[in-house]
Amino acid sequence: MYNKMNRTELEALHAILTEEYKAAKEKDLKLDMSRGKPNPRQLDFSDGMSGMPWGKEDYISSGGDVRNYGMLSGIPEARKLFADLFEVSPQNVIVGGNSSLNLMFDAVSRAYTKGIMGNTPWSKLDKVKFLCPVPGYDRHFAVTEYFGVEMINIPMNEEGPDMALVRERAESDEAVKGIWCVPKYSNPGGVTYSDRVVKEFAALSPRAADFRIFWDNAYYAHDIFAEDSLLNIITECEAAGKPDMVYEFASTAKITYAGGGVSVIIASEANIKDIEKSIFYQTISYDKVNQMRHARFLKNPENIREHMKRHASLLAPKFRAVLEGLDKNFAGLGIAGWTKPNGGYFISVDLTEGTAKETVRLCKEAGLALTGAGATFPYGRDPKDSNIRIAPTYPSPEELAAAIDLFCLCAKLAAVEKLLA
Amino acid sequence: MYNKMNRTELEALHAILTEEYKAAKEKDLKLDMSRGKPNPRQLDFSDGMSGMPWGKEDYISSGGDVRNYGMLSGIPEARKLFADLFEVSPQNVIVGGNSSLNLMFDAVSRAYTKGIMGNTPWSKLDKVKFLCPVPGYDRHFAVTEYFGVEMINIPMNEEGPDMALVRERAESDEAVKGIWCVPKYSNPGGVTYSDRVVKEFAALSPRAADFRIFWDNAYYAHDIFAEDSLLNIITECEAAGKPDMVYEFASTAKITYAGGGVSVIIASEANIKDIEKSIFYQTISYDKVNQMRHARFLKNPENIREHMKRHASLLAPKFRAVLEGLDKNFAGLGIAGWTKPNGGYFISVDLTEGTAKETVRLCKEAGLALTGAGATFPYGRDPKDSNIRIAPTYPSPEELAAAIDLFCLCAKLAAVEKLLA
Repeated sequence: MYNKMNRTELEALHAILTEEYKAAKEKDLKLDMSRGKPNPRQLDFSDGMSGMPWGKEDYISSGGDVRNYGMLSGIPEARKLFADLFEVSPQNVIVGGNSSLNLMFDAVSRAYTKGIMGNTPWSKLDKVKFLCPVPGYDRHFAVTEYFGVEMINIPMNEEGPDMALVRERAESDEAVKGIWCVPKYSNPGGVTYSDRVVKEFAALSPRAADFRIFWDNAYYAHDIFAEDSLLNIITECEAAGKPDMVYEFASTAKITYAGGGVSVIIASEANIKDIEKSIFYQTISYDKVNQMRHARFLKNPENIREHMKRHASLLAPKFRAVLEGLDKNFAGLGIAGWTKPNGGYFISVDLTEGTAKETVRLCKEAGLALTGAGATFPYGRDPKDSNIRIAPTYPSPEELAAAIDLFCLCAKLAAVEKLLA
Repeated sequence: MYNKMNRTELEALHAILTEEYKAAKEKDLKLDMSRGKPNPRQLDFSDGMSGMPWGKEDYISSGGDVRNYGMLSGIPEARKLFADLFEVSPQNVIVGGNSSLNLMFDAVSRAYTKGIMGNTPWSKLDKVKFLCPVPGYDRHFAVTEYFGVEMINIPMNEEGPDMALVRERAESDEAVKGIWCVPKYSNPGGVTYSDRVVKEFAALSPRAADFRIFWDNAYYAHDIFAEDSLLNIITECEAAGKPDMVYEFASTAKITYAGGGVSVIIASEANIKDIEKSIFYQTISYDKVNQMRHARFLKNPENIREHMKRHASLLAPKFRAVLEGLDKNFAGLGIAGWTKPNGGYFISVDLTEGTAKETVRLCKEAGLALTGAGATFPYGRDPKDSNIRIAPTYPSPEELAAAIDLFCLCAKLAAVEKLLA
């Protein structure tokens, strides 16, 4: 335990770590654990899609010719596929383009310019606030920051966001219009919301009529070591008499192609109608040929689960390399805690307060790129300067083992420097 | 000439036309000239794209793996293809998703929520106005209507919009923020803007610093009977010292697939940078696999022109059927004028004032669907109730001949009723 050491011991340790760091720097490493990016081998799993649709008959959806105009809310085959996967009805689903972030941005943009279901557009209000479970996904926070929304940190625990705080904020303040959630294998903690948390979400009575839970179910099918179970927020909200309180989002970015998948928004029929009214002005239709490609390739939920097992088999050794490295290097030192998710794309590490930025800086100087410290918080500001997101998917297990050793060395050095300061 | 007839003659004519109309109704026709929709045979011209990319090497763009994240502004191969086609530099081009309407909507939306290049967001202004050459494209007008923009009709003539009026409005009123243009084979008139008109656009000195020409070059490559020439608005504005005054848009919706093409926005580098700043928040990237598919399939401008000749060979007999039908039925009656475009997707007919709505109603009752009267004007209001858009691309030449006969009969009946009223 570093914090049990006296100054002399710490100084001796500092000298050793400094030597080790110098040696590491001399290795001229080029490592990257910064980006939640699929490895090309994962992309290869969807190569079967490249020749699709195969023949003329594959262009004919039950809704018409997918190559032509029409079917604004998506082709029936794709709506059904995602309805089956997320256990809702096809009329609860709009299938979009390749980016679910774009669907989320558009949802906030619509609320801002036109208002949700007849409510005052957010652009006409003095103040709009969003609840942001932290650590969270930087691109979510960036969307609300873009629209000038005030973001309020909500701590995450092992069951999900601190629901007492969510309730208090949402139920007391009409300016609170929404919350960003990644309910399964959260980015970056890998936390799956417990049944209790999901039920407490559905039981919310927000002060604002246009409060929406932005339920980004990005990793719904992305199990690695086990299958976390997650309650269906759509049916839970329905059962609680709040069918319109949630927008659910998902995509195939990490099922098929990050650069050429399809995305969905799932919501109550009243929400879907409200959204369609705006989409009509926004576009002619989304890319329906790609929707057909996906419907034909992914087929059904069972096949998607089989497909995801291939991803898992590639990702498991990578996550294991990171977790073992963290164990080996940090055990007993009292300077770091981390999550051990069953799936998803990230591992979240909490270092000694006030050392995250310095750790990232030291890593960078020694050739290891990490997600910027603070990125997992609104405005890029981690009040404790402690959280770091580890993204193990792109590098090889060997690269990850080397990267984690270097990361831990830098974190130790930063921790000792902090204690000596 | 109907307006030279006396009442007795008109009544006799009315009786004849009424009989003919009754007979036509009994044929139980099902005809449709309402939608600017490619015929499936046109879509077949791009079937070669269905098996693409063909192999792993086709996924590797010079900017990286198109299946993965990155390349927000489009893959270099697609940017170059469109840069070559529109005679600009790749850094003037952002390649988007399948819908150029979506790029236009997003451009207005950005101006509304964030402002263009540091100017006041339109949402913060009391009044925003757009100039709308009429007749024009209903989906353009719908976008500005969605954002509460006041639309001002600008008459079209055979050279393009009435530039004296454009100049007067744009140069006197700071609330005038833009103009919708379809500069080649305009929708619906098929007018290509003359060199003089394009140069007058480039020479504009709008009162508003954030005035933008929305140059929807939708039919740039869509020649049928001849190749109208159109000056390059980007280089013209550059030469006139107003490089930032224009956003140009285009897509492959009517080159490859209406439901699965790619779109582009073309503008000065300063504009592109301003747009990229927002797109960063909006999406992860556009569908780059589809961009690669298009870059490989369309290859270069020469090949696109060859490809478009196939479309032309299919469309020429259709346009001819409509034009011959109009000639045959309307010659010498003085109740209709129409355009004879060299390309594009539409023919525009101007009927006796106050008879367009009635003509559409009569057609509908006899089994012929037409674009709604008024659709070619902002707010759906044609002040003269005269203009009708004919869309000849989807039906066969035989269907079109029958449809035009019926259309002309209805127009004649409406004209006689009007004269008798």
